[in-house]
Amino acid sequence: MKNKNIIARQTNFADWYTSVIKEAKLVEYAPVKGTMFFLPNGWAIWESIRNEIDKQFAKMNVKNVQLPLFIRQADFLKEKEHVEGFAPELFTVSTNKKGELAEPLVVRPTSEISFCQVFKSQIRSFNDLPVLYNQWCSVCRCEKNTRPFLRNTEFHWQELHTAHATKDEAVKQTLKTLEVYKNFVEDYLCMPVLVGEKTVNERFAGAENTYTLEALMQDGQALQCATSHYLGQNFARAYDVKYQTRDNKFDVVHQTSAGISTRIIGGLIMSHSDDNGLILPFKIAPTQIAIIVVNANDKATNNYVKILKKTLGDKYRVIVDDSDKSFGFKINKYQVQGVPFCLAVGTQEIEANEVTFIRRDSNDKVKIGLKALAKHLTTAIKEYQANLYNTANNRLQSSIVEVDNFNKFKEVINNKKIALCYFDDTIENEKKIKELTGATARCIKQAGVKDKTCFYTGKPATHLIYFARAY
Amino acid sequence: MKNKNIIARQTNFADWYTSVIKEAKLVEYAPVKGTMFFLPNGWAIWESIRNEIDKQFAKMNVKNVQLPLFIRQADFLKEKEHVEGFAPELFTVSTNKKGELAEPLVVRPTSEISFCQVFKSQIRSFNDLPVLYNQWCSVCRCEKNTRPFLRNTEFHWQELHTAHATKDEAVKQTLKTLEVYKNFVEDYLCMPVLVGEKTVNERFAGAENTYTLEALMQDGQALQCATSHYLGQNFARAYDVKYQTRDNKFDVVHQTSAGISTRIIGGLIMSHSDDNGLILPFKIAPTQIAIIVVNANDKATNNYVKILKKTLGDKYRVIVDDSDKSFGFKINKYQVQGVPFCLAVGTQEIEANEVTFIRRDSNDKVKIGLKALAKHLTTAIKEYQANLYNTANNRLQSSIVEVDNFNKFKEVINNKKIALCYFDDTIENEKKIKELTGATARCIKQAGVKDKTCFYTGKPATHLIYFARAY
Repeated sequence: MKNKNIIARQTNFADWYTSVIKEAKLVEYAPVKGTMFFLPNGWAIWESIRNEIDKQFAKMNVKNVQLPLFIRQADFLKEKEHVEGFAPELFTVSTNKKGELAEPLVVRPTSEISFCQVFKSQIRSFNDLPVLYNQWCSVCRCEKNTRPFLRNTEFHWQELHTAHATKDEAVKQTLKTLEVYKNFVEDYLCMPVLVGEKTVNERFAGAENTYTLEALMQDGQALQCATSHYLGQNFARAYDVKYQTRDNKFDVVHQTSAGISTRIIGGLIMSHSDDNGLILPFKIAPTQIAIIVVNANDKATNNYVKILKKTLGDKYRVIVDDSDKSFGFKINKYQVQGVPFCLAVGTQEIEANEVTFIRRDSNDKVKIGLKALAKHLTTAIKEYQANLYNTANNRLQSSIVEVDNFNKFKEVINNKKIALCYFDDTIENEKKIKELTGATARCIKQAGVKDKTCFYTGKPATHLIYFARAY
Repeated sequence: MKNKNIIARQTNFADWYTSVIKEAKLVEYAPVKGTMFFLPNGWAIWESIRNEIDKQFAKMNVKNVQLPLFIRQADFLKEKEHVEGFAPELFTVSTNKKGELAEPLVVRPTSEISFCQVFKSQIRSFNDLPVLYNQWCSVCRCEKNTRPFLRNTEFHWQELHTAHATKDEAVKQTLKTLEVYKNFVEDYLCMPVLVGEKTVNERFAGAENTYTLEALMQDGQALQCATSHYLGQNFARAYDVKYQTRDNKFDVVHQTSAGISTRIIGGLIMSHSDDNGLILPFKIAPTQIAIIVVNANDKATNNYVKILKKTLGDKYRVIVDDSDKSFGFKINKYQVQGVPFCLAVGTQEIEANEVTFIRRDSNDKVKIGLKALAKHLTTAIKEYQANLYNTANNRLQSSIVEVDNFNKFKEVINNKKIALCYFDDTIENEKKIKELTGATARCIKQAGVKDKTCFYTGKPATHLIYFARAY
């Protein structure tokens, strides 16, 4: 049973993407350009991601806080690079009562400034360090070309902000956060990623170093999944975040910030889903198992299902569908919505004391006896997660092509692959390549560059870099 | 050990309130007037409230969604009463790039309008009803006089919005939601409340009926804890939310909305806390038990504490403080922060295989053997919750004074009590009373009013009403 409203990926990948979002009822467009209504199915994915990241962050002793939506424009203007990076995207606020607002406010596009203000109020001495604060919120940026999840006027994210006594400790935190993200994205979202530092041109406005996770979508375009920044002392200097050192002097803190946003939901969709709709990793799926009642309203069936739900419901996120819709309708619905496993229960299954176990990824159907179900599930979850990851990883690995000249580079990029090349990294060269090919430096691969030549300029290379077209 | 920065309630209740907030590190003022930095201790209380309400709402089959911060001003203007109610409080948005914004936007002061738009997009027929959607978000309203938690320019809340086929069903939902709030506020927050309908003058802008929970603070002022509104078909008509009925006609839906906000944290503080700092109900406290190590860094102690933490940590939210601060410092800290139970562990306790169990509410200290601990905890939790509730309830009940003339009314209000009186309820009369006494109608008590006379006008009474000064 195929949902006819879902466009085939081969026909038009962009239309497929929006049709999956619509049919899976994740979001709807809202009236203000670039904003969305998150429907229950869409928001539940984000809540699932939030719950898991909260758990991982708690292990690092991160505390959640909540800072204001509005920032004084005057405060925003203090860190030069930051301002220049965000100025074109800012929303500013005025009241409807003329003159009542004492000064212009901006709607936060990110919260480095508020965090600096909190740090300043909370940090007195080295004893108070490190401080690790995170917030879940939405941020707003004017965007010209908007697409659901991928580029929104308002989007949701978590932003982790930390303050440290030393550069060394802050850099370690930057990399540790990156590692937490990598494990989460690979293990929970089944998305293999390239990990590395961003080039100067792609760096976060105001950061000294930006590290990124880059995934590859099914259409050959890269997607930035998460970033982790070492901010140095730039913000701390601009906002006067100092502390008393062990030897009774004063120094400004070293900061990091890092974030993962609702953009990752777009990445999830484009990594795994197919022409039948959404495919979600088991670990993150809001509904992990749907028990589908084939003949509803029969007492024996109801009891059977009740026990099944009770057994599985303690361990997994389970729903029961005993509506009077047809089996075909139901299986199609959960397929479109990306529920990993459907357990069909009808007269046959009850007589044989079993369920029909249907996997979303492979569409495999097997009969499993109730006694073997728990064990089968454990294995099936592992296989399912591994299958999603391996499929995506094979795509990623086979897409990377080493390139040493510009013609080959253009060919690789036009074939929707990732070009790995030695490069003389300057902002100018990056801009030129983007202009000519649409490709951008996704991240730097750690490697020696001695005696290596830039594929583009023929000059000595400074870095080994992954280039791709990207969302 | 008393925290000297906490003002006595008797000295100045308002200063006591802000000193508790500051010393318990709940929030700090942020630079934009009326906005706050929620610090970890403050935000954790809200997360704890959120988690519990999410659980209660899930039982009603409510789904969480997330709708935009920005609403088109043109859309906002469609429901007349709603607009009039909120117009003076609106923040409007413009970009910094002149002319780029196609139309004026408002920052949501509440989301009835967005929910109508979602309902319109999701509801086709009676089969789709009822729809029960909730969102956790912040809303912004220009406020002149702001106070932490009680009145903020930006505050956090949940807003539940539902759509139904019939008035009867919608009214039932309004009351059911009110009941969920009442149980939550009384059982989890230990705050006894007066429950009833709001008068016309106090009704939500655009609603047909508003129901409220009103608690009494330690200074004799009332505080609105939560509201539940039957919106009728006003919004549905203005925003064209129709559905196909069973007999193939079209009708507009009946709606409800309801919310509880971070204001309740202010209510929590003023209900239970004392001159030593915060007192939090056990069920809602982010940290329920603090294990205080008296002599840190001793291997036997560490093991003892580790086992204790492991045993309790499965069931309760437990922290261990094995820092090298003094016992006095530690106990003071958790007292100020409102941790319900502290378990002190030192050499003595380890030798006797026990803990010193210290209750925040009564400050009782008892030695409890490890074997008896689980049972003691179960009892102590019940007693602790009951003690907070009963103390607050005694205050509430003894504050209610029946009043049948205006002189008595003024005396009661000036004595910081609640006046219960038969009243000829008109907007004009309510406004006059507020002007003369500062008291407002908190809610209507259900009662017959036949042959009853208004305490104020001497005319026949229309309602029996609780009046009080309120936050």
